Amino acid sequence: MSTSTPREAGARIKWVLETHRNEDFVAGAAGLAELSGATVLHGPGLKWGYGKIAEDGHEFGVGKLKVRALTTPGHTDESMSYAVADTRAASDAVLVFSGDALFVGDVGRTDLYGPEETERLARTLYRSIHDKLFPLGDGVTLCASHGGGSVCGGKILDRDLSTLGFERVHNKALHGRDCEAFVAKKKAEKMVRPPYFRRMEVWNLKGSAPLLQRVAPLSPLSLAEFDEHVKAGAVLVDARMPHAFAGGHIAGALNVWLEGFSAYLPWAAAADAKIVLVLPEGADLDLVARTLLRIGYDDVVGYLRGGFETWQDQGRPVARGGTIDTDELRRRLKAGKENLVVVDVRKPDEWDEGSIDGSLKIFVGDLEERIKELPRDRELVAMCSVGHRGGLAASILERHGLRATNYLGGYTAWKKTADNG
Amino acid sequence: MSTSTPREAGARIKWVLETHRNEDFVAGAAGLAELSGATVLHGPGLKWGYGKIAEDGHEFGVGKLKVRALTTPGHTDESMSYAVADTRAASDAVLVFSGDALFVGDVGRTDLYGPEETERLARTLYRSIHDKLFPLGDGVTLCASHGGGSVCGGKILDRDLSTLGFERVHNKALHGRDCEAFVAKKKAEKMVRPPYFRRMEVWNLKGSAPLLQRVAPLSPLSLAEFDEHVKAGAVLVDARMPHAFAGGHIAGALNVWLEGFSAYLPWAAAADAKIVLVLPEGADLDLVARTLLRIGYDDVVGYLRGGFETWQDQGRPVARGGTIDTDELRRRLKAGKENLVVVDVRKPDEWDEGSIDGSLKIFVGDLEERIKELPRDRELVAMCSVGHRGGLAASILERHGLRATNYLGGYTAWKKTADNG
Amino acid sequence: MSTSTPREAGARIKWVLETHRNEDFVAGAAGLAELSGATVLHGPGLKWGYGKIAEDGHEFGVGKLKVRALTTPGHTDESMSYAVADTRAASDAVLVFSGDALFVGDVGRTDLYGPEETERLARTLYRSIHDKLFPLGDGVTLCASHGGGSVCGGKILDRDLSTLGFERVHNKALHGRDCEAFVAKKKAEKMVRPPYFRRMEVWNLKGSAPLLQRVAPLSPLSLAEFDEHVKAGAVLVDARMPHAFAGGHIAGALNVWLEGFSAYLPWAAAADAKIVLVLPEGADLDLVARTLLRIGYDDVVGYLRGGFETWQDQGRPVARGGTIDTDELRRRLKAGKENLVVVDVRKPDEWDEGSIDGSLKIFVGDLEERIKELPRDRELVAMCSVGHRGGLAASILERHGLRATNYLGGYTAWKKTADNG
Amino acid sequence: MSTSTPREAGARIKWVLETHRNEDFVAGAAGLAELSGATVLHGPGLKWGYGKIAEDGHEFGVGKLKVRALTTPGHTDESMSYAVADTRAASDAVLVFSGDALFVGDVGRTDLYGPEETERLARTLYRSIHDKLFPLGDGVTLCASHGGGSVCGGKILDRDLSTLGFERVHNKALHGRDCEAFVAKKKAEKMVRPPYFRRMEVWNLKGSAPLLQRVAPLSPLSLAEFDEHVKAGAVLVDARMPHAFAGGHIAGALNVWLEGFSAYLPWAAAADAKIVLVLPEGADLDLVARTLLRIGYDDVVGYLRGGFETWQDQGRPVARGGTIDTDELRRRLKAGKENLVVVDVRKPDEWDEGSIDGSLKIFVGDLEERIKELPRDRELVAMCSVGHRGGLAASILERHGLRATNYLGGYTAWKKTADNG
Repeated sequence: MSTSTPREAGARIKWVLETHRNEDFVAGAAGLAELSGATVLHGPGLKWGYGKIAEDGHEFGVGKLKVRALTTPGHTDESMSYAVADTRAASDAVLVFSGDALFVGDVGRTDLYGPEETERLARTLYRSIHDKLFPLGDGVTLCASHGGGSVCGGKILDRDLSTLGFERVHNKALHGRDCEAFVAKKKAEKMVRPPYFRRMEVWNLKGSAPLLQRVAPLSPLSLAEFDEHVKAGAVLVDARMPHAFAGGHIAGALNVWLEGFSAYLPWAAAADAKIVLVLPEGADLDLVARTLLRIGYDDVVGYLRGGFETWQDQGRPVARGGTIDTDELRRRLKAGKENLVVVDVRKPDEWDEGSIDGSLKIFVGDLEERIKELPRDRELVAMCSVGHRGGLAASILERHGLRATNYLGGYTAWKKTADNG
Repeated sequence: MSTSTPREAGARIKWVLETHRNEDFVAGAAGLAELSGATVLHGPGLKWGYGKIAEDGHEFGVGKLKVRALTTPGHTDESMSYAVADTRAASDAVLVFSGDALFVGDVGRTDLYGPEETERLARTLYRSIHDKLFPLGDGVTLCASHGGGSVCGGKILDRDLSTLGFERVHNKALHGRDCEAFVAKKKAEKMVRPPYFRRMEVWNLKGSAPLLQRVAPLSPLSLAEFDEHVKAGAVLVDARMPHAFAGGHIAGALNVWLEGFSAYLPWAAAADAKIVLVLPEGADLDLVARTLLRIGYDDVVGYLRGGFETWQDQGRPVARGGTIDTDELRRRLKAGKENLVVVDVRKPDEWDEGSIDGSLKIFVGDLEERIKELPRDRELVAMCSVGHRGGLAASILERHGLRATNYLGGYTAWKKTADNG
Repeated sequence: MSTSTPREAGARIKWVLETHRNEDFVAGAAGLAELSGATVLHGPGLKWGYGKIAEDGHEFGVGKLKVRALTTPGHTDESMSYAVADTRAASDAVLVFSGDALFVGDVGRTDLYGPEETERLARTLYRSIHDKLFPLGDGVTLCASHGGGSVCGGKILDRDLSTLGFERVHNKALHGRDCEAFVAKKKAEKMVRPPYFRRMEVWNLKGSAPLLQRVAPLSPLSLAEFDEHVKAGAVLVDARMPHAFAGGHIAGALNVWLEGFSAYLPWAAAADAKIVLVLPEGADLDLVARTLLRIGYDDVVGYLRGGFETWQDQGRPVARGGTIDTDELRRRLKAGKENLVVVDVRKPDEWDEGSIDGSLKIFVGDLEERIKELPRDRELVAMCSVGHRGGLAASILERHGLRATNYLGGYTAWKKTADNG
Repeated sequence: MSTSTPREAGARIKWVLETHRNEDFVAGAAGLAELSGATVLHGPGLKWGYGKIAEDGHEFGVGKLKVRALTTPGHTDESMSYAVADTRAASDAVLVFSGDALFVGDVGRTDLYGPEETERLARTLYRSIHDKLFPLGDGVTLCASHGGGSVCGGKILDRDLSTLGFERVHNKALHGRDCEAFVAKKKAEKMVRPPYFRRMEVWNLKGSAPLLQRVAPLSPLSLAEFDEHVKAGAVLVDARMPHAFAGGHIAGALNVWLEGFSAYLPWAAAADAKIVLVLPEGADLDLVARTLLRIGYDDVVGYLRGGFETWQDQGRPVARGGTIDTDELRRRLKAGKENLVVVDVRKPDEWDEGSIDGSLKIFVGDLEERIKELPRDRELVAMCSVGHRGGLAASILERHGLRATNYLGGYTAWKKTADNG
């Protein structure tokens, strides 16, 4: 009458299967192994600091399941997939964990070793997908490492469910392309590579990251403690939505909305920075702490108790940010005489989908190091796809003594109203 | 950073897709429609009391999904499947809701219209699977109506995940069989048909079942109230495990372990019976209430507050049941002179997998009406696969003045020790 | 090893004790009675539409507890208290449910029948507290109807725990006052009376409010549906914090932060208004629906799916609000030549604690009907205690074609910085 | 609109107040201090291995609260109470944490230093209660260390709520007694002292217990692993209810129902024993692990996966226990010729409330060491208050080659039916 969890059913974790040395988050394998006594399996070719190597074709049983390790290089050289059979039904696989080789609607990126290696990796990936994965059969369920929104694949669909057969025919990165066309497409990709990847690569190879089970709870800070940390150089991150930030904030804060932490905070705050937080009401403190550690921040000193209101209710100075809407932006650009520059902070592959004429294109992650390219004598309007990264951009510029208005709605609204009009 | 539920994401329920007039539980469609304002879709050919008919090939969109209705008769004449495409990827289906046509490892039963119709239905089902479902493509994910343990298919595997491609090759009811062989196999099936199916068929056709959102919470009963209901003819159901029941119970109680309610209680208690319960510690009261309504009991008067201990602590008479283990049973049967009969209460298709020599085979659901076949002058040992249904059998016999010992371990233990020995 | 809930322990609800016809929310008694079959008890003197009357001194048992009804008029004429004894220990009371007679740190308001009745009610309340409650004994635990923040008592402390003995000595509304001094204090009280009280009084007397168990889930609305409702006259309520509202909102929206719904929405939106909502991320939809019904809104048509971002991402016009901080306000007021008026929208009893010189005092709830008193030729700064009601005030003014800046920090910040400087 | 937890409200734990070196469980203070950075306060006079000493009268603030330490010896010499004032209301205390000095309905035991010290401790406790606690005022809320069922006070009521004023008048250990009468009552008390107290005393003094945050999850064991541990001498504890145990169990198992773990397992299994478990369905694994560590078991090897059914389904030998009900016991005792002895395993203070004529009185905790006093030539019936400890007793006797029937209902049923008849 009830469905029990694996734990309630008496299951134990015996194996942790790593598909590759991930670079976009702290892998949980070492921590899970400590908690459970499980053995971690990795792909061959790297000097891992923990776990064991699974060679191509290695098989082992887990209850009535049979797992087979497959080397599927391309995203990285040590990338693995794991095919799983339900031996009660057949010795053929029912599902495959494909790591960063094959996603729903896309394939893994092949640019992480640098431009000179991209072609080799792309060619290798093509072979892994066609010669190792697809032969498992059209009816095999695909369990990929990333879903929509990941930085590890440009166009992954936000649908969890797919099969090798469906991807063989409909995957947009593959279909209709022979190996050469595929390689050409991969070489043309413009993907960003967040700076924290470097720390993750080392930690995940050595297993040296702080274990998630040791994450300290986020400390509430009194205003006095908060002041002290900020004075001592901590990076102040305001995690509220850009509207709230524009309505009132502490001067000098970075504005990264909570859902954007993983993808954008590492561009704006150094991996070894001390972090102090201003959180929105109702933020899940444990999720925030875990997310920050997952992307490598191991020196989070705490969050201001009571949030931004504590600040304002003590009569502290309140900074405000500018926002602009579609009508006003369009009107002012149309007038033409305006001293106005749109700074398009989206990612390079988004620019290809269209942009506002005359905009200055600098990805939000590059803004800090390219700050000198921004004209100091003109009014800046930060634009992204909807207004989140625009808010971050505005806060980065504010920290550098520039002032930018955030375009609420961003290119989505621009395009929509252009279509309508 | 968080994953929202469909509700949190602002989704509304607009359609409820019924694959057929289910007979093994109260369908939630009418209740869900009331709560959500959704429209229920049914297959053609029956006089439904609610909802609309979806003709073969009917298509409609749900956001970026496209749903196509397919008539796939065979389990019943009005059986439907629904293929779903993600139009961002392709107009081909990514998944199909196959109702009771195709399961993981098995297909729907075809005996519900009686033996004279089984051949026709089996032939129809074969065509539905091969001509309507499989052509959707090997890479289509299968979403079947039932999982392992259902009374609607004999050998459904307890794995949720499969595809049309995997089932096309590995489904044990299909592979290697042409239509004639398939029909022959289906005609040879021996499946039980619980008596409450009849009530469910009417309710689900008319939409006349009590709505789940109206299920009253289970009432705790004082011992005085409990006595009164039992005296007035309520059926007393003791939901503890057979060991606990054997250790002490109220004379006259039916013993149906909680997890066995759906599958076995309807064989032992009439659909319109008043039910009073003795529950184990920690039983989920809402789940119990919902389960009972789901199988049609709409007159559950409550449960004894404090459970069996309330009874014993008042000094009420305690009945006990006998149990026997493998060693003792084997020894006594071997001795041969024993006045002992094993009553094998498993289902007919389980008997085919082997049984104890000389056992009397009566399915637990038939025990009551075949009670006269049991010898009154011999010692009875009730046996099922492990000892749950054996406990129910023992309690049924006790209510009829017979006395049976429950074989703990059942045929599983018997076979295991035979293999060992 | 576990602590069971009353429900798990087999408890039933047999009585619902009402202390008086509440006016500040929809009473749950009628709904609870429907769900549980319990009997509702009320105080004498009113024509209740449901339940029974408990006369003074009426006693009844609940298991080993003994409950005694006490008439304790003063807040209203039919006000009751209920003293509870644990008969295993003594026949003396261990706790008393004191309704709106006695709170932690304060007593019930006595102005609800109008100024001409206040003296009589205050005198009656004094007698109820001293002659009916305190004689129960110093060691009796106090269970009052309201905690800190309620509109039913001005200075209730936000501590749940107290006793008759502690309040007898330390209650700020009582100690050191004889009956005349108490009456004088009560007559001098300035309390606001939200307009929705009238609807609640009728509903709670008749039991005619929609039952909470029938609250429909909040409907997500597409932008088109949202537009249609707004066009048809629905009141648009934006429940984000004032900072976010200032950063960008839909013109014409009322801004009531979620926690302020109960206390302030009824001042701004008519009881029979159609309500459409713009919610902050992560709002608890069921809590919002329940809260709205609790204060009488029974025509909530839904909320904009995706919140304000849906609006902006479609390129719709974005209104912005002004905010001001302490430094700037002080500087500009000091300059003296400024064309600036502070509108103090706090409650009358808050004004008594101090205010900014020269401010115009209009309680936020009276703003709409006193809109003409506001100068159209000067810049308005809305001020409350911290900046929440100030945000509401600014949104009310904006709806009337006036423009007000919200003072972030409010009188709290003003006083703090005055103290510091 | 929502109630936040202390954590969500930004609270930190700065102090952990210990009232005395507890002996009946592993104190969580050291672990909490590690997690939170808080300081532990203890009473004076012992050489604590962690934390600081709070002298009598020591005061400190926690936000707007003021805490005052009071030495209240008697239960032990270092026993403390802590009075808490809400300075917004008054400097007088609103509540007191009274440790094991004063409970709801009873006072702390005074026999832990041995009979020669009981008089001194009782006299000291009387003074602490009358000279230190009661002077705080009748209106002070009582927060005692233990609730009903604790081994630290004989007759604590299972009501959480009381006050000093209520206890001053109604506490059954105090009222109507001067100091001499109180001392005489305390000297006459017969309380049991579980053997694990010794380990707890050392651990809690030194802070050397395993920290709760390090409790390993309970390991599921395969039958082979289970066999191995049992063979190697682990103590097998079957945590099902006595009825289930009687219906079928593994020979040699101790039967301690889950809720009885804290109070009874330590009497039956040595503090340093390896423990393997057979658990009932639905047992909360984390709660079981935590409970076992709380009473000092730090070598729990795991639980049999699938519970007792795993054992029986492999055809293993099943032991059964006898049960007897009130009618049969009464009938057989009345007949008089029966070869039957009732072994009353309740606690000495329960015997004083009445017992069955001719019963042999041995507390279940003493059964093992007094096993030789049991007649081997007669039939034994184990009796406790309802049948739980009777089940444990029967399992202890079975391990020693004796056979006892468990009286279901126990003295509760016996008395009830005697009253009726």
